[in-house]
Amino acid sequence: MHLHVALSPAEFAGLDLSGRAAVVVDVMRATTTVVAACAAGCRRVIPVPDAAAARAELRAGGRGPGEMLLAGERGGDPIAGFDLGNSPLEYTPERVRGRTLVLTTTNGTAAMLAARGAAAAAVAALTNVGAVARWVLAQGRDATVLCAGEQGAFSLEDAVCAGILVERITAGAGRAGRSVEASDAAAAARCLGAHYAGRLGALLEDATWARTLARAGRAADLAACLALSTVDEVPVFDDGAIVPGPVTSRGGGRP
Amino acid sequence: MHLHVALSPAEFAGLDLSGRAAVVVDVMRATTTVVAACAAGCRRVIPVPDAAAARAELRAGGRGPGEMLLAGERGGDPIAGFDLGNSPLEYTPERVRGRTLVLTTTNGTAAMLAARGAAAAAVAALTNVGAVARWVLAQGRDATVLCAGEQGAFSLEDAVCAGILVERITAGAGRAGRSVEASDAAAAARCLGAHYAGRLGALLEDATWARTLARAGRAADLAACLALSTVDEVPVFDDGAIVPGPVTSRGGGRP
Repeated sequence: MHLHVALSPAEFAGLDLSGRAAVVVDVMRATTTVVAACAAGCRRVIPVPDAAAARAELRAGGRGPGEMLLAGERGGDPIAGFDLGNSPLEYTPERVRGRTLVLTTTNGTAAMLAARGAAAAAVAALTNVGAVARWVLAQGRDATVLCAGEQGAFSLEDAVCAGILVERITAGAGRAGRSVEASDAAAAARCLGAHYAGRLGALLEDATWARTLARAGRAADLAACLALSTVDEVPVFDDGAIVPGPVTSRGGGRP
Repeated sequence: MHLHVALSPAEFAGLDLSGRAAVVVDVMRATTTVVAACAAGCRRVIPVPDAAAARAELRAGGRGPGEMLLAGERGGDPIAGFDLGNSPLEYTPERVRGRTLVLTTTNGTAAMLAARGAAAAAVAALTNVGAVARWVLAQGRDATVLCAGEQGAFSLEDAVCAGILVERITAGAGRAGRSVEASDAAAAARCLGAHYAGRLGALLEDATWARTLARAGRAADLAACLALSTVDEVPVFDDGAIVPGPVTSRGGGRP
């Protein structure tokens, strides 16, 4: 199988995802939040480009009060009139179970929308990286990881998460006797993943957006985003929305 | 000082280089070749986008036969009717001393043209990375490294060279009591540079373009491109062309 990592959103326009599995990563915080929402039992997450599109989705939804919630952020801050922000800690079963979330974030939802052209697509964060590796291996397809980045540019934490994913997919493929061909970007991400996997706390210093969130008093969010493989939930794309996926079996081994 | 690395050409359009020093990297092979040409005493190198522009430059040059040479490649292969290809080994004093080279390559010359908006710009390869680090420190400006990449995408060897450069600039700044702020991309490149600096031969396996050049019988070129800090020449931009720069002093210490 061939593995590629789009290290920044500047590369999304040139990607050919036809026939491939796609994985969207926005560690701080959109995909960590989607994983948390799906693990908490939300019905589905509809990614939309902006707040106006979110409100239009709500008007068109035709559901009773509270069934559909508006969620997201701009520049890290909550959006006026929205029900939920972009902290994974807000997405408790009490708030989201059975509900449809309409989500818009500065970087993450654009990456989610870019993944729609793939044959299959899932949402990854550090919290579910092992489960997503198993999901990718089960697809039996070439795969591309889309790093949401920050304002169109590369972000370190997304590349690290992509790299840990590449490492776990490669290890799992090796155990199954399957060969993996890594693009240069996938090889680079894997190198970054190997460097940071045992010291994720170093991202608090090295990643620009982690420093920004820390200054904004978001230390609890950062801790939630930097937890490694704590859930087996793999949110998957279904007809343009993201739905809780099957919990992937750990089987007898890793990843 | 602030350091940034544009990890792929997809990011060039969004770069603001005003007031900054720019460094162009295309390890395999365009910038290694420009460093070799300048070290061999060429008069200047004029980067142009394509073969037609190169021929137009030759017609407009108004010089005697042999003073101006056409140089470059497309897809790694020589261009019909050109005097020189893109192997650094061709650029001997016998061939290029005192001559103007009009250069067009698949990836490298586009990166060179993108660097023209900077306050100062230089050409780096693994062969002169220590000298370029000293040049950057002497500029007293924020700096951006432009990785030429491959067909618009990320290439591992350019990111590794950029990362070794970031590491040496950071070390040199530290010795001078200057602080360095690294963008996420610069931090990632530095991590890659630290991983590969002591094992550049691993790029022969890990870098896609190195494997392609090896299959094309270019092993000697690869060896020339993977030599670390063997020359002190720093080609610099001057009025749209690239000219041999002052040989930077190693002084009493590194880099």
